[in-house]
Amino acid sequence: MEQQVLQIRRSRSKSRTGAANIAVLGAGGLGMAAARMLAQKKEMRLSAIADKTGFVIEPEGIDPQVLVDKKPGDIGTRTDDAIGEIIRNSHAFDGIFIALPNLTNDFIPDVVSGFAEHGYSGVMVDALKRSGAVEMIFKLDDKLKQSGITYITGAGATPGLLTCAAALAANSFMEVLGVDINFGVGVSNWESYRATIREDIAHLDGFDLDRASRMTCAEIKDELDRRCGILRLGSMEHADDVLLERAGIVSREKVSVGGVVDTRNPKKPVSTTMTLRGRTFDGTVSSHRFILGDETTMAANVVGPALGWMKAGLEFHARGIFGVFGSAEIMPRFVR
Amino acid sequence: MEQQVLQIRRSRSKSRTGAANIAVLGAGGLGMAAARMLAQKKEMRLSAIADKTGFVIEPEGIDPQVLVDKKPGDIGTRTDDAIGEIIRNSHAFDGIFIALPNLTNDFIPDVVSGFAEHGYSGVMVDALKRSGAVEMIFKLDDKLKQSGITYITGAGATPGLLTCAAALAANSFMEVLGVDINFGVGVSNWESYRATIREDIAHLDGFDLDRASRMTCAEIKDELDRRCGILRLGSMEHADDVLLERAGIVSREKVSVGGVVDTRNPKKPVSTTMTLRGRTFDGTVSSHRFILGDETTMAANVVGPALGWMKAGLEFHARGIFGVFGSAEIMPRFVR
Repeated sequence: MEQQVLQIRRSRSKSRTGAANIAVLGAGGLGMAAARMLAQKKEMRLSAIADKTGFVIEPEGIDPQVLVDKKPGDIGTRTDDAIGEIIRNSHAFDGIFIALPNLTNDFIPDVVSGFAEHGYSGVMVDALKRSGAVEMIFKLDDKLKQSGITYITGAGATPGLLTCAAALAANSFMEVLGVDINFGVGVSNWESYRATIREDIAHLDGFDLDRASRMTCAEIKDELDRRCGILRLGSMEHADDVLLERAGIVSREKVSVGGVVDTRNPKKPVSTTMTLRGRTFDGTVSSHRFILGDETTMAANVVGPALGWMKAGLEFHARGIFGVFGSAEIMPRFVR
Repeated sequence: MEQQVLQIRRSRSKSRTGAANIAVLGAGGLGMAAARMLAQKKEMRLSAIADKTGFVIEPEGIDPQVLVDKKPGDIGTRTDDAIGEIIRNSHAFDGIFIALPNLTNDFIPDVVSGFAEHGYSGVMVDALKRSGAVEMIFKLDDKLKQSGITYITGAGATPGLLTCAAALAANSFMEVLGVDINFGVGVSNWESYRATIREDIAHLDGFDLDRASRMTCAEIKDELDRRCGILRLGSMEHADDVLLERAGIVSREKVSVGGVVDTRNPKKPVSTTMTLRGRTFDGTVSSHRFILGDETTMAANVVGPALGWMKAGLEFHARGIFGVFGSAEIMPRFVR
């Protein structure tokens, strides 16, 4: 393994081609969307991908075609310490996109600590959702500064794209009275999105993560039947609140996130909308809105912005600006 | 005058109260809105205001009440070189907001050069509209870097708030197909907004700035009568195009800006909307939209974001990041 580390060190080649080497942690829906998007970009390339099955490292770039119907362990090295391997080879990567499943709150913060303790100096971006997990990332600020890591948290769609839209909209107002994020998701068949639907059920009244994780597929199907396939989610724990509060825009209790998931129809049941209500300097109360195109998928709205924050992070890193930033504080930069 | 300069140098007091000293150039609609907004902010204060009548410098803060129905020359020092006086005292200011009338393209770039040649080191923000003027500001990049100026251009509503919303929205897409900005403005009486309406007329087919500036008020009234008070403006020269092209988002010819101005009704004839159409990584074409609240005024949507970019500029300046940035490159930071 030592030999492999040395070879990868030599082949780090950002300066030769101008494209940043990106490692993606996770090869589920978001990780695979990242692989497909990176293949269409000139400024970045997929140089590693890892999940629980194993990892592939190829600094010159991984063709996402080889991952179709395959897992990283199928085409690269099979191991149950794939993240550890990425950490040990982290000098080969300009940026790390964390697209791991949202497990317990401390899982991703522990992974991030591992990179800092190894002495990684580069950019890291996550698409964490829960307020508690994002708050744990902010607590790593000193540690990441010492390691020379520029970290952007909550950098997906919500939190992320919509949080940043709220932070932008706030500037027209003297006081922000409330931020309301309402998302619509449509899937033709819940069984293609078992993990996501299971987590959505955990957010319903009377359910929690523990209860949802113990439900059988038949029980989930029964629950969906009782609700005619529609899940209405309100007052979700989403880190939009923490990120907007930290940016000094509005206190967290004035931020609400909810949505409607149709598990039987790919059409979004409602348009995904961020509404920010505020009072202007002349006393007027009004609302700005940001509305996502109904045809855009969750993957496009999560991973596209995440890569945009990766590029912004690379610019900050090149200027020697390290530490943890929230997605409401930095403009994501369109990646060509 | 030398004595006044020295006294102002001593009283620069950002570190004592934590509020940044802001000088506003211009005391028209936007300059006066800036004065009123700054009076409601803790992080910034109005420390100087200047227009063609004269100037007031008061580092401890100017009460906007003293400016009601008065001009800077009425309450401070009457001079026809007010901008020169602000330049000579510029060491007293952390930031300069340029809210001067939009005269010839080279007027504001010349003012900015004056600050750099005097050795000013601080933040400058403009709300320029025309592409040609913004391009002239970008050409000052080297000169401003040498002086230690952090400059953000096109930092109003459009260009500005809506341009930045387009830059944010772009991240969901692999390719941006077009950006369309359509604004609505309603005023109850064109005579309260003579300069603005005159410039709007200059954008109509068959008119130009020269012809509009030579029209008598009776001729403007006749022109408005012929159009039932409604001005429909299309394909305007707005720097949204230059700013989005420079940020690498879309080529300038794919950006269009137009609007409808009702000169007889304060209600906006249409909602001000930015629509960005793009193609996602999976080939889908869709549009994100950003819609301003109908009740928000031009002043709130121009000056609020301008001060947000001022705060972002102060953060960049503190990190030693100088030069010219477009409003599509930097997140404006909500000012408390």
